[in-house]
Amino acid sequence: MRFKRTIFLMGALFVSLAGSAQISSDSVFIRKIFDEALTNSHSYKNLEYLSNSIGGRLSGSPEAEKAVQWSKKLMESYGFDKVYLQEVMVPHWVRGAKEKANIQSGKTKIEVPICALGGSVSTGTKPLTASIIEVKTLDELKNLGRSKVQGKIVFFNRPMDPRQVLTFIAYSGAGDQRRQGAVEAAKLGAVGVVVRSLNLFQDDFPHTGSLRYDEAVTKIPAAAISTNGADKLSKMLKTDPNLKFSYEMHCETLPDVKSYNVIGELRGSEKPTEIIAVGGHLDSWDLADGSHDDGTGCMQSIEVLRLFKSLNYQPKRTIRAVMFMNEENGTRGGRKYAELAKNNKENHLAAIESDAGGFTPRGFGMEADPAKIKAIQKWKPLLASYGLHDIGPGHSGTDIEPLREVDKNAALIGFLPDSQRYFLYHHAANDTFDKVNKRELELGEASMAALVYLLDKYGLDGSK
Amino acid sequence: MRFKRTIFLMGALFVSLAGSAQISSDSVFIRKIFDEALTNSHSYKNLEYLSNSIGGRLSGSPEAEKAVQWSKKLMESYGFDKVYLQEVMVPHWVRGAKEKANIQSGKTKIEVPICALGGSVSTGTKPLTASIIEVKTLDELKNLGRSKVQGKIVFFNRPMDPRQVLTFIAYSGAGDQRRQGAVEAAKLGAVGVVVRSLNLFQDDFPHTGSLRYDEAVTKIPAAAISTNGADKLSKMLKTDPNLKFSYEMHCETLPDVKSYNVIGELRGSEKPTEIIAVGGHLDSWDLADGSHDDGTGCMQSIEVLRLFKSLNYQPKRTIRAVMFMNEENGTRGGRKYAELAKNNKENHLAAIESDAGGFTPRGFGMEADPAKIKAIQKWKPLLASYGLHDIGPGHSGTDIEPLREVDKNAALIGFLPDSQRYFLYHHAANDTFDKVNKRELELGEASMAALVYLLDKYGLDGSK
Repeated sequence: MRFKRTIFLMGALFVSLAGSAQISSDSVFIRKIFDEALTNSHSYKNLEYLSNSIGGRLSGSPEAEKAVQWSKKLMESYGFDKVYLQEVMVPHWVRGAKEKANIQSGKTKIEVPICALGGSVSTGTKPLTASIIEVKTLDELKNLGRSKVQGKIVFFNRPMDPRQVLTFIAYSGAGDQRRQGAVEAAKLGAVGVVVRSLNLFQDDFPHTGSLRYDEAVTKIPAAAISTNGADKLSKMLKTDPNLKFSYEMHCETLPDVKSYNVIGELRGSEKPTEIIAVGGHLDSWDLADGSHDDGTGCMQSIEVLRLFKSLNYQPKRTIRAVMFMNEENGTRGGRKYAELAKNNKENHLAAIESDAGGFTPRGFGMEADPAKIKAIQKWKPLLASYGLHDIGPGHSGTDIEPLREVDKNAALIGFLPDSQRYFLYHHAANDTFDKVNKRELELGEASMAALVYLLDKYGLDGSK
Repeated sequence: MRFKRTIFLMGALFVSLAGSAQISSDSVFIRKIFDEALTNSHSYKNLEYLSNSIGGRLSGSPEAEKAVQWSKKLMESYGFDKVYLQEVMVPHWVRGAKEKANIQSGKTKIEVPICALGGSVSTGTKPLTASIIEVKTLDELKNLGRSKVQGKIVFFNRPMDPRQVLTFIAYSGAGDQRRQGAVEAAKLGAVGVVVRSLNLFQDDFPHTGSLRYDEAVTKIPAAAISTNGADKLSKMLKTDPNLKFSYEMHCETLPDVKSYNVIGELRGSEKPTEIIAVGGHLDSWDLADGSHDDGTGCMQSIEVLRLFKSLNYQPKRTIRAVMFMNEENGTRGGRKYAELAKNNKENHLAAIESDAGGFTPRGFGMEADPAKIKAIQKWKPLLASYGLHDIGPGHSGTDIEPLREVDKNAALIGFLPDSQRYFLYHHAANDTFDKVNKRELELGEASMAALVYLLDKYGLDGSK
């Protein structure tokens, strides 16, 4: 493409903001936030270190411990007013040797890519080989009954719904297979489960993610299979319903390990006891370096505070960057944070979580009372120039949700980036640093900083 | 990330549409368009063929001819009411053997990645080696004057402005160096120019693009240098202002070649003489397969018509998919299209161009009289659920702009996808099929189809 002339949308939007003096001074400062992020941000090089020098960091792993110590030092190096750890015991699940699987039909044996779901038991010392039965839903499984399931592997093969524009809805609609499939299958005597990867695209990456066992039900080994592998298996089952599926997994759950949330603060000058938290989760799945899930959210959160320092902005309220530990397989860090907030009688004005990837910003989803949501929506004219249009009720974040139980006034806010690419990488071996676009990452942190600035300046109850 | 619950923004937006019956029936049909695009679209596999089996297709090349014949056959295979070619003579510039360049400082010789700008003359049979002088702007060059420029290579090194959120503005702000640099440098006696690639990222890809010569001024060879190469050169010039730059390019301009615009039509049932055109450009630069620039725009335009056929939508007006030839280095196809529209006394209600990459949709930029822009903006509530918020005055498209001269009533509309990744690939060797996200491509064509549907149903003058 070429551009001959310079009539542009954004120009028109800026002009439309020139209405009031208050809006004008805020728009100038928000513009400074974006300028600083787009020219001097540290987040991309910080993420490069986290992703490429530390790598995947599942709770309890040596890498998770490294990430804790490194992010603490990083925030200290920025001279934040206070940097500290919150001790929390976390689960310690390890994958062991790489998983293997194949489909056996007559004399044909075809390998397919699988990985253990997080928290799964192993297949034991030998591969698990059995007949396999395909279902699309948990209800379909229940209707089959014990006679058709006993002794078999259950293959859950309901794809994410591609018609959902917001891909998180498609994810939410297909997640029960992964989370509850093993328990429901075991109740009917199944010996294992294989679940279609929660991926909107056709490829060869299996996508892990946590499952839930029930202590009263036999724990059976649960694997994710790539979308291509799932299609192949389904196709082969149509011509040979008696084919065998064979897989081996060497994962195990070790005793809990001591770990930490990592917190940095800029102390408020006028209302230091009122807190605005912004965070991501420091742990990641082990298959990749966890760049989008959730290295980006962590590095953006640190950068929000660094941007304020760099712009000499002295917040009225205390601004806190929180790296939560163990979002992926326990939410222990999020629950510990809420527990300590309660014990310390902390007062959160708002908590913002970035855990939907480092993609171009689209807006913020909010769990808060309607008056607070409305107060935030009044800032739309200031945020729309930066592509932030989707500001309304929505999912906030797994790590900050426990806060609701202990601080009913806190507005819980989820940063909402564009969702189209997220499930290409989510929980898979391709969630790596090269998938992160520097500018998209920076626009995200600037969007978060702009909202934190407005929250800090105006609060949410009409008073300042 | 995990999603525990299903409170979502999009749900809230859908609810807000439930106001009027008219809006409701339109929202149902637009939902069908998106459903069809997200489940049954042909655009991605068509693009795969265009990109991987035909490849780069600069005007006048055998690949451009192949793309003409293939896209004609493709539209015929879909049973469009009419598929035809518009003959047009196009420039035929060829790159020749791969370019080479190095920086020579003392005994050090460092290779840097360059490519010829489109339309450049060659360096002749031997490499061109000379002193090199860095400038940031054309004004800075003019101020240096002949004495400091004569006999030298001029190095234009003004980066795109990273602070621009809409990257097209940054592109527009840096493009004069590439387009006019060679002429302005030659006027002062320079022997060649090297221009920093129009790329917002630091990497090793030189980005080509067209330049303009002036027949009254000596034509000197003009190259683009990668952003990393430009930074290296600039750094070395600071310590050794007398270093030499040496490059060889083997490009040449051959006689014009006969080529074609390719057009497919669905004939209108009520107002067949009123046309809504939707298009992209079929030619691409030669360094890559031109997937984002502009294979996506072409395949999306064809898909708009295919979607309507697939949904049994009988348009009132004539809907036309236009593959323009020669956008990149001549706009001959766009001008021919306008010329024939004038000769045939055609009446365009609107022309929509998709030439900003196959990324997630953000909206539409429009060049039209304010009443028409306002009429389109009234449809915002129907489009916002699909992320289409930026609907207002803006750049339309290089191929459709000539229409303005012959049909003052035509609303010229540019499809506006997210712009953050475009200049990572634009005119460079990495603009390849693997950079296109299937869902983003499909959301784009569905967005265009939704707008075409509303234009077709309601027109733009208040009457139907």
